[in-house]
Amino acid sequence: MDDRDLCWLALHLLFYGPSAAARRIVGRFSSITAVFRAVRADFEGLRVDGAAVEAIVTGRAMDRARGELEKIEKKAYTLLTFGNPGYPGYLREIFDPPFVLYCEGDPEALRNPAVAVVGARRPTPYGRAVAEKLAGDLAGRGCVVASGLAAGIDACAHRGALKKGRTVAVLGSGLDVPYPWENRGLHREIAARGAVVSEFPLGTPPLAENFPVRNRIISGLALGLVVVEAARKSGSLITAKLALSQDREVMAVPGNVTSELSAGPNGLIRDGARPVASWEDVAEGLPSPWRENLLARRDEKEENSAASLSRDERRLLDELPVDAALPIDELAERTGLSVSSLLALLLGLELKGAVVQHPGKEFQRRM
Amino acid sequence: MDDRDLCWLALHLLFYGPSAAARRIVGRFSSITAVFRAVRADFEGLRVDGAAVEAIVTGRAMDRARGELEKIEKKAYTLLTFGNPGYPGYLREIFDPPFVLYCEGDPEALRNPAVAVVGARRPTPYGRAVAEKLAGDLAGRGCVVASGLAAGIDACAHRGALKKGRTVAVLGSGLDVPYPWENRGLHREIAARGAVVSEFPLGTPPLAENFPVRNRIISGLALGLVVVEAARKSGSLITAKLALSQDREVMAVPGNVTSELSAGPNGLIRDGARPVASWEDVAEGLPSPWRENLLARRDEKEENSAASLSRDERRLLDELPVDAALPIDELAERTGLSVSSLLALLLGLELKGAVVQHPGKEFQRRM
Repeated sequence: MDDRDLCWLALHLLFYGPSAAARRIVGRFSSITAVFRAVRADFEGLRVDGAAVEAIVTGRAMDRARGELEKIEKKAYTLLTFGNPGYPGYLREIFDPPFVLYCEGDPEALRNPAVAVVGARRPTPYGRAVAEKLAGDLAGRGCVVASGLAAGIDACAHRGALKKGRTVAVLGSGLDVPYPWENRGLHREIAARGAVVSEFPLGTPPLAENFPVRNRIISGLALGLVVVEAARKSGSLITAKLALSQDREVMAVPGNVTSELSAGPNGLIRDGARPVASWEDVAEGLPSPWRENLLARRDEKEENSAASLSRDERRLLDELPVDAALPIDELAERTGLSVSSLLALLLGLELKGAVVQHPGKEFQRRM
Repeated sequence: MDDRDLCWLALHLLFYGPSAAARRIVGRFSSITAVFRAVRADFEGLRVDGAAVEAIVTGRAMDRARGELEKIEKKAYTLLTFGNPGYPGYLREIFDPPFVLYCEGDPEALRNPAVAVVGARRPTPYGRAVAEKLAGDLAGRGCVVASGLAAGIDACAHRGALKKGRTVAVLGSGLDVPYPWENRGLHREIAARGAVVSEFPLGTPPLAENFPVRNRIISGLALGLVVVEAARKSGSLITAKLALSQDREVMAVPGNVTSELSAGPNGLIRDGARPVASWEDVAEGLPSPWRENLLARRDEKEENSAASLSRDERRLLDELPVDAALPIDELAERTGLSVSSLLALLLGLELKGAVVQHPGKEFQRRM
């Protein structure tokens, strides 16, 4: 932390979120430290809120930044300011980059641009399965997966990525405000093996208005955005719009036209988004040289390759759908196997990560 | 039938199917009747099979045509020759239009260009439901639906269209050769209320090689082609390619990426086909003035409007999926209603055409 970082933080605490006034201030002065050496008259004609100018020229803004920094250090968070070489280069290029990113975990996870995977908060089993599989396949090939830690598709994307590689969560609240509550365990896991970031000052509650603001960072950190399931007029479609305005590749997973949650992705595709079904499809949509780097990993051996399954396991797996769960009775009927021998086989498949069990002894293939 | 029609038939019987030689003959002579007044020398340099020339100049080709015509009249089929004003104008524009269409039923059904709906022979319940619904919605608004009378999506498209309007089936065999056998009832129904057509002479068996040839007529008769479900490398994708080469709009119904039968449509969409979920989407894809004419019917009242359902019926309908069948037990569990009162409600919904019952007391909504 040097003085300049502290100045960025001080300005950020006054203006966080997209702010034209903050951009005008930065544009007027020769450096960020010069802002805090300025007098009232230097801000004339900038149309900046009077209270903010007062906080700057009286030193109160710097005091606040010092206080915030103390809390940040106590929490062992990292502060990435716009002037710092550790600030994500890809995020720097958007129209309204945050001056500061609070980071919990490893800031190295932000060094390379990510692929964002987002979608509905209450997805179908189909959406869950696809999000988890896509994220895992991308992460397993060295691609960081970014998402918003929301319930549903976001959580599936993070979980899938954690199994095979790294992931970054972008919050709509302060880093120290766990939200949503049911994902607090996932938050810890991501912080331990990737990074959780936010532009919101510590203690900021998850206000509804924060989420569209947060979404520009999810897509800003990414080369491209994949929308997995989304209703018409949902937040994910706003993120897709933001991504487009940031010149990011917008991709979408098509789905049955009878599913309301596929209306969003199908509509994006109709409007020009790239339809994707696999990590290779996603790779095809990325700019050079990321595209080529990722595709070069096409022939690498899958971890859970079919070869590690027994013949019986493989036959059973073929009976299981990936987009719905099948009750054990129905599975017994289809395969002609007894319930007890089925359960033994399914346990083996679960341990190999090929099958997931749902409540009521229902089983689903993990793609 | 005049002499010219007979000449077209005679030439057709020698060359049916796309034939460059036949096109060269027609190009050389001033009229179709002139072909049959020609001598051997007139065919020089045309690279036409010697046996065909012999048949033409000896009069044997005309004799054969007279024999075929007798059979056609006995069956009460209509013959539409390329020179006849009743020949479908839209089909006339393709690169290799058939010289003759045999027509069973009402040739008026061919007067306006159709919309083609094609797809897999063994579709999923999702594909069946969408094909039937799309075809019904289009036919109900005066749009003729063309397809190939194959099992699966083709049959669903014809059936859906018959419920609300007119449909045209294009065969890969002679009109008098019923194929596939299970659709012979549907064939009769289409002939009675629309048209069944073929370019193949009477008695032609359904040879595999006939179907790609037939497919160019399906798309040739249509303004656009909708592919509902299709595996990778399937016949429907060949039809889509033909449609593209004929400058027809290619449309596809997206589906879950986990379904093999959606790989075809999703792939077409990736390659530029228009994704469609409703008849309005299809209408949007058609050229003017067909597009505007069809869209003008947007606000017409649906026949099976929700208004004709009771509150209980509507609530039950909301619980039913359109792309899968739900067992009665599960429905009872979901709704909290008794099986007997459910069955009473479902019967009412079936009679109103809103629900279909599958074996084993499973019920599915008809979109």
